[in-house]
Amino acid sequence: MPRATRNSQVLHSAAELFAMNGFAATSVRRVADRAQLTKAGLYYHVRDKEDLLYRICEDSILTILSGARRVIFGVSEPQERIAALIGNHAEFFRNHPNNLNVLNRDLNALSSVPRAVIRKLERAYLDLLRKTILDGQKAGVVQRHLDPTVAAFTLLSALNSLYQWYDPKGRVGHRALVKQITTLLCSGLLVTVAADRRAKQ
Amino acid sequence: MPRATRNSQVLHSAAELFAMNGFAATSVRRVADRAQLTKAGLYYHVRDKEDLLYRICEDSILTILSGARRVIFGVSEPQERIAALIGNHAEFFRNHPNNLNVLNRDLNALSSVPRAVIRKLERAYLDLLRKTILDGQKAGVVQRHLDPTVAAFTLLSALNSLYQWYDPKGRVGHRALVKQITTLLCSGLLVTVAADRRAKQ
Repeated sequence: MPRATRNSQVLHSAAELFAMNGFAATSVRRVADRAQLTKAGLYYHVRDKEDLLYRICEDSILTILSGARRVIFGVSEPQERIAALIGNHAEFFRNHPNNLNVLNRDLNALSSVPRAVIRKLERAYLDLLRKTILDGQKAGVVQRHLDPTVAAFTLLSALNSLYQWYDPKGRVGHRALVKQITTLLCSGLLVTVAADRRAKQ
Repeated sequence: MPRATRNSQVLHSAAELFAMNGFAATSVRRVADRAQLTKAGLYYHVRDKEDLLYRICEDSILTILSGARRVIFGVSEPQERIAALIGNHAEFFRNHPNNLNVLNRDLNALSSVPRAVIRKLERAYLDLLRKTILDGQKAGVVQRHLDPTVAAFTLLSALNSLYQWYDPKGRVGHRALVKQITTLLCSGLLVTVAADRRAKQ
């Protein structure tokens, strides 16, 4: 198996175990077992348990961020950009169902220097969301009296919490989920003339 | 100091420490120190560390739930009920800034029976949110094509995540925060005729 594939398999196994039992309660031995490696084999890929956590977090946020930049590239309408960003984040969750859990809950287990690196990446993603909202306000498409920072964090909270409640095998499929969340965040709960029009399109 | 006051001080101190360092990394000794009690004095109030966690979770969800029932009592308009529920949840966060963190992150540290009790209480609160949304749909006020369960969980996610980013000492005051979140969840990001009208009221 190529090293890159093996690497991502190691991170995948570790994310599964961290999400299930928490970072503190997971041993390197269990990660190695799950990735079908010896402990020595695992140490060929990562330095230690903290390195595993760091690389799950870094990999997650870089994947979301690069995906976000890709999906809005060439899209000029702010409302389409917002929908594309929501879709991208939900797609990451679909492909990495355990990673948002680890990122949300275990980030504080990192020591201060690596944690600061992850925080900086998260901030870059937040800035992208905020800028998209601000651009929408400048274009007259996003409500002017909304605070872009509050709006960006609320968007992020709704997306980052999907792992807490959404069951991919449940009643609502992935496409329906994305449509629901996009409608809710873009048009809100309440009936409005424009929301009615959008829903009928 | 009356026992009830001392009790809530113990839970407050424990929630502060659990939120800061996590449940696993917090010792009963540190909780006792923070609550200005001896370890023996602390055991007069709680059975053990798990009991502390259980009571923080139970107390939190019961406070949110009873507050929710109180603020919607006698309010018939669904959109006012939704706004009242958002306000109630944000008010709980203002009064107990550490508890949503503990509830979100450390609930899985409870053993299965107490955890099931907390999950049942959470479910009752979710049902209340969902029913309010459903009533709004029946009254023609909430968008019909929204799934009440997805909408209720999205509302909950936005509110439960406040501790992750909102700084009470920051630029946006509590009242402004509640107004922003209510506008965002009720009217959405995008400009609509009705949202414009509401904003001008």
